[in-house]
Amino acid sequence: MKYTAHINVMPLKELLDPQGKAVSNSLHNLGLGQVQDVRVGKHISLQIEAGSEEEARQLTQDACKKLLANPVMEAFDFTLVAG
Amino acid sequence: MKYTAHINVMPLKELLDPQGKAVSNSLHNLGLGQVQDVRVGKHISLQIEAGSEEEARQLTQDACKKLLANPVMEAFDFTLVAG
Repeated sequence: MKYTAHINVMPLKELLDPQGKAVSNSLHNLGLGQVQDVRVGKHISLQIEAGSEEEARQLTQDACKKLLANPVMEAFDFTLVAG
Repeated sequence: MKYTAHINVMPLKELLDPQGKAVSNSLHNLGLGQVQDVRVGKHISLQIEAGSEEEARQLTQDACKKLLANPVMEAFDFTLVAG
């Protein structure tokens, strides 16, 4: 069965996020001063062929740990949707 | 009131996504051959001070259109959470 995983990989809260800071400053310069605490990470969508949702979850976790997220600097979370 | 926006900016479906292709190949090399159709975009979280959810939605859309997404190559969607 096919599953679609939507993965977010974000810089850890404890760390500075210079890209987020730059976006925040730019938004302020564009007149959007109501915006704060901008953090920028990655969003990855992928399709997985797996026998069960549990297996798909395991495979997605493997992919995040082996390649998509760097645990020293980033945290990941994901949602799985059938189809 | 404070709102948190979670924004996804993804390459348009019609366009090649070389970064997604590279991730897909790497996952296959790592033994995760069940993975297909990888697409890589950005995930941005930010906090907005706004009087109403409608205003927060408008401000988030402004931020996406003015800075965060390039409409020639990218599509965005977002969810708003109070607090």
